[in-house]
Amino acid sequence: MKMIMAVVQDKDSGKLASALVKAGYRATKLASTGGFLKAGNTTFMIGTENDKVEDVFRIIRENCKIRDQLVTPVSPVGGTTDSYIPFPVEVQVGGAAVFVIPVERFEHY
Amino acid sequence: MKMIMAVVQDKDSGKLASALVKAGYRATKLASTGGFLKAGNTTFMIGTENDKVEDVFRIIRENCKIRDQLVTPVSPVGGTTDSYIPFPVEVQVGGAAVFVIPVERFEHY
Amino acid sequence: MKMIMAVVQDKDSGKLASALVKAGYRATKLASTGGFLKAGNTTFMIGTENDKVEDVFRIIRENCKIRDQLVTPVSPVGGTTDSYIPFPVEVQVGGAAVFVIPVERFEHY
Ligand code: NI
Ligand code: NI
Ligand code: NI
Repeated sequence: MKMIMAVVQDKDSGKLASALVKAGYRATKLASTGGFLKAGNTTFMIGTENDKVEDVFRIIRENCKIRDQLVTPVSPVGGTTDSYIPFPVEVQVGGAAVFVIPVERFEHY
Repeated sequence: MKMIMAVVQDKDSGKLASALVKAGYRATKLASTGGFLKAGNTTFMIGTENDKVEDVFRIIRENCKIRDQLVTPVSPVGGTTDSYIPFPVEVQVGGAAVFVIPVERFEHY
Repeated sequence: MKMIMAVVQDKDSGKLASALVKAGYRATKLASTGGFLKAGNTTFMIGTENDKVEDVFRIIRENCKIRDQLVTPVSPVGGTTDSYIPFPVEVQVGGAAVFVIPVERFEHY
């Protein structure tokens, strides 16, 4: 038995939760902030059998891929706004920090 | 030293917290949602000596038992409401998922 | 690789977060309540290499020291308020409960 702790971006957490449930894994989401990833994040605590760890990593990789996203800033960072023409910029989103922790005993009632 | 991570239903968490404090254990509650248990849940992080693990499990079992509860739905799931006579239905509440994790070092200041 | 779980008082958490980031550590804050420490608290989850554990403990000790603080109660605990002269009392604040947990595998994307 292992406990997988995965810190992912908030924007990926709904998709990851659905994928884990669909694949039959049981996960708990802990409210968390900052640190491992720049934006708001969520920590998943997933209890799983040893031989399923690889599969959980696959699901996390597929649902929390780092990718570039086009974002259109709503206003200029400085200066006057009258000559401002908004144009999209690329930002990197996604990613995950994943820890596997040994579980010495597991019980559920 | 062990770290016990216990995911329990929100409705059992106050009772469990009191029982743990009364028995002299130190626990931290982490805000958590979904997954191991259907309803809203709370994750307890309990640091304890090895020879107390059994006692902590007993306290969790006693305070988070799975039991049936009568719930009266406030409205019919579908159809018209004029012929609706509310009657209580049994739902299963309670339960806990409990993980014991090794602690290699513990310090408190 | 280790996972350090540190429960600290809310009032020390901003300072600790800054110090960890400045020293190059990656930490996630979990919303938590009660238990190990009397006041509101925050749980830091810090993933680090084995040879950095001592340094993380030092940073926690420096930023979460137990110290006395003068607090002026806003109202008397009982009795009438007309003869009440508020005067500051010393309360102990700060402190931390720190757990080192083994990590069998760590990946980040
Ligand atoms: Ni079962
Ligand atoms: Ni002590
Ligand atoms: Ni890297």
